Amino acid sequence: MNLPNNICIVGLGLLGGSYAMGLTRAGCTVTAVDVRDEAIRYALEHGLVAEGTTENPAPLLQKADAVVLGLYPQALVEWLRENQAHLKPGTLLTDVCGVKGGIVETIQGFLRPDVEFIASHPMAGREVSGVEYANCEMFRPANFIIVPTEKNTPRGIAFAQGLAETLGFAHITRLSIAEHDKMIGYVSQLTHAIAVSLMNATDNTHLAEYTGDSFRDLTRIAKINEHLWSELFFANKENLIAEIDQFAASLEGLKQALANDDEAELKRLFVQSARRRRLFDKKQAER
Amino acid sequence: MNLPNNICIVGLGLLGGSYAMGLTRAGCTVTAVDVRDEAIRYALEHGLVAEGTTENPAPLLQKADAVVLGLYPQALVEWLRENQAHLKPGTLLTDVCGVKGGIVETIQGFLRPDVEFIASHPMAGREVSGVEYANCEMFRPANFIIVPTEKNTPRGIAFAQGLAETLGFAHITRLSIAEHDKMIGYVSQLTHAIAVSLMNATDNTHLAEYTGDSFRDLTRIAKINEHLWSELFFANKENLIAEIDQFAASLEGLKQALANDDEAELKRLFVQSARRRRLFDKKQAER
Repeated sequence: MNLPNNICIVGLGLLGGSYAMGLTRAGCTVTAVDVRDEAIRYALEHGLVAEGTTENPAPLLQKADAVVLGLYPQALVEWLRENQAHLKPGTLLTDVCGVKGGIVETIQGFLRPDVEFIASHPMAGREVSGVEYANCEMFRPANFIIVPTEKNTPRGIAFAQGLAETLGFAHITRLSIAEHDKMIGYVSQLTHAIAVSLMNATDNTHLAEYTGDSFRDLTRIAKINEHLWSELFFANKENLIAEIDQFAASLEGLKQALANDDEAELKRLFVQSARRRRLFDKKQAER
Repeated sequence: MNLPNNICIVGLGLLGGSYAMGLTRAGCTVTAVDVRDEAIRYALEHGLVAEGTTENPAPLLQKADAVVLGLYPQALVEWLRENQAHLKPGTLLTDVCGVKGGIVETIQGFLRPDVEFIASHPMAGREVSGVEYANCEMFRPANFIIVPTEKNTPRGIAFAQGLAETLGFAHITRLSIAEHDKMIGYVSQLTHAIAVSLMNATDNTHLAEYTGDSFRDLTRIAKINEHLWSELFFANKENLIAEIDQFAASLEGLKQALANDDEAELKRLFVQSARRRRLFDKKQAER
């Protein structure tokens, strides 16, 4: 695949750092811009990047053929407004944001016409942050979603595709902004809302010694980064509220079956959920 | 530890079979009673038991020093009513039921005074059933809860303790019936109700290719056995309904923070859930 040679990572966190590792291993010249001195120092010492700065990004951007923006949504938009003047003509840009609505249109609305922003979402993450935890192996089982708009060109889409293939993602697909955000509202944000609400439902910490794997699996994602996730939740508010309502109605239906001693209905709900969940295993096995 | 020599397992499913494996390995003489010919044949062929029957259990019970009842709650009560006459005086009995209220008192109410039933709950399981999946290694990371009542003696409690130690459970504790069922309503039944309701909220099967680990972890337990779990839910109905209500209120609070653009409250909820969840990791690590 035909990946640009010089790639600048802006925001050297867990994802940005893992991109840097994977792209350096693939033979690209990777540079990095971050606000933390320690992040740049770590990346240089561990061979994740060839150069890095916490100062003026212009010198690195002027050498970059492509830029990966590993920033939170709002910071991403602000950073691009301030720094797009430094980009080389023809630069390809992409992001790692978990929500696309409101962000992609905004960026594509103000961006210089001689550079291209193609949105993408690596569906990978951990309950830790920082380049110190970077590991490009985390992409191997993960999904990568490319979110093209009418502003994108085949060259831009091919860049995102090549990036995902180089980083070794298991599954690469394309969705529209609306499809992406609806899907994310259900499979990612609703699950985080549930895990958080389960931990908050009661002061349960005295129960820690009794919890089994199922409880731990279900609540692992409750160790949430409040800054990132409040941005993501508000950015996808309508979809997420609709998903919460649908889930709450489903749970209420189960409760009613229980309250009414309706054994047939309760069993029907169990059979349906088990059948659906087994399909997920099947589709995973088919990959 | 001083475990009885001859132990009869009644109900040779996943748990009963795994008990048989662990107890045979520990040097006990293990026998089994089941309704499935194939279960008994499998257990004999794989050396899990020394003897087994699908017919009259009296000959095996008359040799047994202890009986482990690996049956569903209702079946357990019925089986004991029908077969307690065959037990040797002094026989120690225990179960594997996930709910204790209504069951333990009933059994201890009608049981012959010269035998003893001590309730216990191995908090282990998988999304499969049958002796063919038996594997006593599944007890190593798991909790074992002994649920003594005023009808129990030190000898009965020591039997349950010895059983759990022999089978290698990580953590052995004692709770009252009420404490047990309240805890189970939260850490096990509510989590299953959530996973089932999440799978049932929408026809989501087209999303399977986009789901990440967090969604799969959260819904793994939705592959639920409808016969066992409807019994368990109805047996603990009041506790479970109270837990569902508390969780639903917690989720509604999160939704309101979102709807009201209350960033401070949303972040507070995230910080609280993350702090609580990290305590669970800490307590696990301390074990």
